[in-house]
Amino acid sequence: MKTQVAIIGAGPSGLLLGQLLHLQGIDTVILEARSPDYVLGRIRAGVLEQGTADLLRAARAGEHMDRDGHVHEGISLSFGGTRKRIDLKQYSGGKSVVVYGQTEVTRDLMDARRRDGGLSIYEAADVQVHDYSSERPRVSYSHKGQRHELECEYIAGCDGFHGVSRKSVPAQAIKVYERVYPFGWMGVLSDTPPVDHELIYASHERGFALCSQRSLTRSRYYVQCGLDEKPAQWSDERFWNELKARLPEDVAARLVTGPSIEKSLAPLRSFVAEPMQFGRLFLVGDAAHIVPPTGAKGLNLAASDVQALYTLLTRRYKEGRLDLPDRYSEVCLRRVWKAERFSWWMTSVLHKLSDDPFSQRIQRAELDYYTGSEAGMRTIAENYVGLPFETVD
Amino acid sequence: MKTQVAIIGAGPSGLLLGQLLHLQGIDTVILEARSPDYVLGRIRAGVLEQGTADLLRAARAGEHMDRDGHVHEGISLSFGGTRKRIDLKQYSGGKSVVVYGQTEVTRDLMDARRRDGGLSIYEAADVQVHDYSSERPRVSYSHKGQRHELECEYIAGCDGFHGVSRKSVPAQAIKVYERVYPFGWMGVLSDTPPVDHELIYASHERGFALCSQRSLTRSRYYVQCGLDEKPAQWSDERFWNELKARLPEDVAARLVTGPSIEKSLAPLRSFVAEPMQFGRLFLVGDAAHIVPPTGAKGLNLAASDVQALYTLLTRRYKEGRLDLPDRYSEVCLRRVWKAERFSWWMTSVLHKLSDDPFSQRIQRAELDYYTGSEAGMRTIAENYVGLPFETVD
Repeated sequence: MKTQVAIIGAGPSGLLLGQLLHLQGIDTVILEARSPDYVLGRIRAGVLEQGTADLLRAARAGEHMDRDGHVHEGISLSFGGTRKRIDLKQYSGGKSVVVYGQTEVTRDLMDARRRDGGLSIYEAADVQVHDYSSERPRVSYSHKGQRHELECEYIAGCDGFHGVSRKSVPAQAIKVYERVYPFGWMGVLSDTPPVDHELIYASHERGFALCSQRSLTRSRYYVQCGLDEKPAQWSDERFWNELKARLPEDVAARLVTGPSIEKSLAPLRSFVAEPMQFGRLFLVGDAAHIVPPTGAKGLNLAASDVQALYTLLTRRYKEGRLDLPDRYSEVCLRRVWKAERFSWWMTSVLHKLSDDPFSQRIQRAELDYYTGSEAGMRTIAENYVGLPFETVD
Repeated sequence: MKTQVAIIGAGPSGLLLGQLLHLQGIDTVILEARSPDYVLGRIRAGVLEQGTADLLRAARAGEHMDRDGHVHEGISLSFGGTRKRIDLKQYSGGKSVVVYGQTEVTRDLMDARRRDGGLSIYEAADVQVHDYSSERPRVSYSHKGQRHELECEYIAGCDGFHGVSRKSVPAQAIKVYERVYPFGWMGVLSDTPPVDHELIYASHERGFALCSQRSLTRSRYYVQCGLDEKPAQWSDERFWNELKARLPEDVAARLVTGPSIEKSLAPLRSFVAEPMQFGRLFLVGDAAHIVPPTGAKGLNLAASDVQALYTLLTRRYKEGRLDLPDRYSEVCLRRVWKAERFSWWMTSVLHKLSDDPFSQRIQRAELDYYTGSEAGMRTIAENYVGLPFETVD
């Protein structure tokens, strides 16, 4: 089998890239190790930057998002018993975010790809990348017991942190930047109305908490916890009590609790692999970088990689700009590091990190300053709604 | 002897407070352990926020500053071989700073106090603070071999980090927040024209450097060094070579070097003592807090304490607002922590701190973001020129 762009991984970034290229008449095949149901079963973030939402629309997969997603024009940061709202729209020059679950994004993209006739091969086992340094790279895989080979011109590795794409490159060719944070998030999904119409990021001496949501009837809450803690140690009652203890009183008083329908521990990691390109193999999204979830940048950063790769490949095929694909890593990394910085900063300023009194007071001074100064609020707003995509001449 | 406000310390904060109160008809006596020449011999910073400059004018001690000081409307941050100018005036709503040496500030205030008839007692030895918790506090001291007692209504401790004022309070009544940075600044004063008409803060893999100045013919340069290094280990040649290595090539190329006329090591410390008031004893400036010099906040923060105390005491005497002096600590600490935060941030983002690759890239991403985003530049500008003084109803 032959294609122009082989895409490894049918998560949101692989599907989004495939759909955008397909709509430009560029031939793609998506290979995914898992089944569609497995892919849809992964519960992830749900805050889409305006640029991400626009890409979904460009991929003709934005209809449900525009119908069911909730536009949020602000977020709150709570600390010291009060909360400060950051007016995202006012302080970002009119932008906002859309709260719409990653599961739904994935389903919409799957449906769009099926509708528009793009080929996705699920349960493609033992995927291997070959000859990415040549002009004729190949991807081999097993499907229903048979070995297959996909000849292509470019390979997009959209298969996540643990995927085969980055691992296909010799370790010495990659420079890794990493920070593993000494705490995790215990998360609960519940069919209860969200405590607030917007997200609340809470800094508290007991630890960080986040009040998030998937819809008007489904909430997602998190509390900072030890990395060694197990969901089984967190009864629903314990979770709700701990969450309430970390929220301002008026917020805690109106929290509606209910049985959890999912409970899990997420570690927090910052990770960047450089470069993001090796010959004709491109690493996209989590395959190249991880951000801690504070700041909701993970999916959005993957989308901005997709935007860059889509733009460069489209111009390569439409304008004959053979030089452009080689700009991918440089273009992406500029924006990657900005998002890594913001995610690191949000994590650092909101979590309980240290028992050192000076560090604690500086952390409080950071919150006071950035929520009290217009310039400070602008820095939060413009990063939260997403910095502009990088451009290429 | 009796007075209304006893001021301990004839550095710039004690003199400024004394002069401002004196001009309001409030009686003050300044006690200083050292001689006038000793006080004038201390070489310190020379960047005055607009608010500090305005206070000097209000104290009728701004004439020489307005004649000889240099208004700076920008600073530069250099990193990665280039430098980015922060337009302070544009991004702070029209404010700027004045470069005018602390020695000159002190001399002008001394002269003004002498001219206007305020009493300063120099070489007042073994100063002791008494009964500050009562309504009749006293300060005793020895002068020319005789012991004296000064009865007063309030005591302003303007005698610096090592002074007697803070030490007069039982340690358990004070909560200390402190960070000692694991590096120092080797500083050189030279009668050479400054390398640039504005200050350059340089972040470099060899360490931080600062190009500062006192006048059009006198420069002040610093390089980050180990805390255990001695000025004697730094020949002029070594210093100039190291400085050049840390500056962008075009800046290094036009650096004019010459013999140093002073060379010294300064440690970097963040320190805050809370509260800043104990009964009728007020801690002002370095007696209550220290900032690392990155960001030029030390003298300016002392001036903002003076502004607060001057305002509160003046209203206490003129409006009979006996409640106001007790607001001093709360009012000052709000602004103190903002300046501590900014000084800590400038120190953290500009110095070589860590060999951890992720930390280094985040530091670079911070510099890229804050010098590349208008909101980011505004946060630097508004802090550098000085956040507004806190107000009291």
